[in-house]
Amino acid sequence: MADLGEFGLIDRVAAIVREVAPGEDVLVGPGDDAAVLRVRKGHVVVSTDLVVEGRHFRTDWADAVDVGHRAAAQNISDINAMGGRALWLTVGFAAPPTLPARWALDLVRGFAEECASVGAGVVGGDVTSADKITIAVTVLGVCTVSPVLRSGAQAGDVVALCGRQGWAAGGLGVLGRGFRSPRVLVDAYRRPEPPYDAGGVAAEAGATAMIDVSDGLLADAAHVARASGVSIDLRSASFEIPEPLLAVAGATGADPLGFVLGGGEDHSLLATFPAGTALPEAWTEVGVVAAPGPDGPAVTVDGAPYEGSTGWTHF
Amino acid sequence: MADLGEFGLIDRVAAIVREVAPGEDVLVGPGDDAAVLRVRKGHVVVSTDLVVEGRHFRTDWADAVDVGHRAAAQNISDINAMGGRALWLTVGFAAPPTLPARWALDLVRGFAEECASVGAGVVGGDVTSADKITIAVTVLGVCTVSPVLRSGAQAGDVVALCGRQGWAAGGLGVLGRGFRSPRVLVDAYRRPEPPYDAGGVAAEAGATAMIDVSDGLLADAAHVARASGVSIDLRSASFEIPEPLLAVAGATGADPLGFVLGGGEDHSLLATFPAGTALPEAWTEVGVVAAPGPDGPAVTVDGAPYEGSTGWTHF
Repeated sequence: MADLGEFGLIDRVAAIVREVAPGEDVLVGPGDDAAVLRVRKGHVVVSTDLVVEGRHFRTDWADAVDVGHRAAAQNISDINAMGGRALWLTVGFAAPPTLPARWALDLVRGFAEECASVGAGVVGGDVTSADKITIAVTVLGVCTVSPVLRSGAQAGDVVALCGRQGWAAGGLGVLGRGFRSPRVLVDAYRRPEPPYDAGGVAAEAGATAMIDVSDGLLADAAHVARASGVSIDLRSASFEIPEPLLAVAGATGADPLGFVLGGGEDHSLLATFPAGTALPEAWTEVGVVAAPGPDGPAVTVDGAPYEGSTGWTHF
Repeated sequence: MADLGEFGLIDRVAAIVREVAPGEDVLVGPGDDAAVLRVRKGHVVVSTDLVVEGRHFRTDWADAVDVGHRAAAQNISDINAMGGRALWLTVGFAAPPTLPARWALDLVRGFAEECASVGAGVVGGDVTSADKITIAVTVLGVCTVSPVLRSGAQAGDVVALCGRQGWAAGGLGVLGRGFRSPRVLVDAYRRPEPPYDAGGVAAEAGATAMIDVSDGLLADAAHVARASGVSIDLRSASFEIPEPLLAVAGATGADPLGFVLGGGEDHSLLATFPAGTALPEAWTEVGVVAAPGPDGPAVTVDGAPYEGSTGWTHF
């Protein structure tokens, strides 16, 4: 990176971004003091995430293109979880001067490709040096329906899930043990496939609360429970455990349900709907919402606190 | 920070943010998957910056409150430089788990106070761990006039400056030599006072190009020159060198003009206006725009390339 220099790198990044994903309604793109964007309808929705080498990714577990895809995906998913549509992203990139410029440019390419997959564009960024690779992403979107918050779940609602759950945690677990297969799980970790269209559909179907599963299914269910002042009971039998996850669990003596309940790397969506709602396609009922118990909001599995392991811990 | 934990810290941060600067037109603030914002009029303007310990600040040269003010100021200034008004900011914060939570909360307080000074609010963020303190800021604003780009300068335009220029670079130079005075310069570095209202006023007065001076006056003039395909000549006699800067230069044998031409820490605004424009209050004419020479766009001082020092280099 030092060879290209800050401004050289910015020029190359801007060229990739323009080529891959120019974005719509971008009146001024990267290269000025700020980008200028046209909001045609609805409210602006914004979320931000920091992705740090060694904490959120390892360069030996995923290549730069994958890291770019993941960084964009986890942010786009936050807009999806409000019922909005992601349109524009900015990316701040800090790395050691010795990092090959190729790595940075590959990251940007993966990032821009993930954005393009939902019709979003990269509209700005910043480049600086740091000891560890650090990626700061902000996503802007629009929401033309009432945003679905974490706080709207009501006792009696059903809890539903959309998207893979546990796959990426299984892949992370495999990598953490030094293996590279089952490949389908490793790939799920390296490049998650969040259900990008499901958030808006759920909002229109009357979802009362919704969250992007990123801290782990139980942890994120607890965020909804606390914000809504309710308890949530998940039904373990409702989760379809994918075959490769069963295989990994069998080979290592782990409980496959732990990956499903603990995983947050697939960026599935968890939502609550009024009882009797015809769930939108691709959504599966996985539990129920109840009034909080005497100890306040809680999340249980099959009526009891979950005592099992929630997969291998992160690095 | 490790004692408070990620979610404990987020709760404390959110409380500070709500108390200091709730922001207007914030339909959903911090704490959900994303913030939701109402854009009443105009286009959305967005910019992002990474601020890294050891590169952009040192904890022994500025306290956490000052670092927060600076981080917000440099971003708000980017919106100002488009002719827009900053309304909402997000802040991603990464730091070693051993960092006292007090430091992080002071930073957030300074950040939120700077935002409040322009009527902007902090609407979201992220907290994670990293080896070095890293602050990722994104600012959103609205622009109700035509945004003023870097690329609009025309031969024959006058070049004008608004805001202090060289003060903060002088303060940084003083700190770099192990001193703490003149205090007024050190303070100017620690907590810049960008001319926040000047961008919109310049846009309405017909500015043809504008930029936030953050890389240094000569460097940023060069950004405008290249983007516009013009040359810029600055007139050294037009810069009023502040008394304390003269004192520092006198004591160290430095050329005080070097701080003015090389400094980027004051976040002044540089703009071009059609010749004959009555410059808005607080703007000073400092040069002229000319057609590019045979070697292309260039920036000169008093008709010649500037060969002098541009202040002490950064750490």
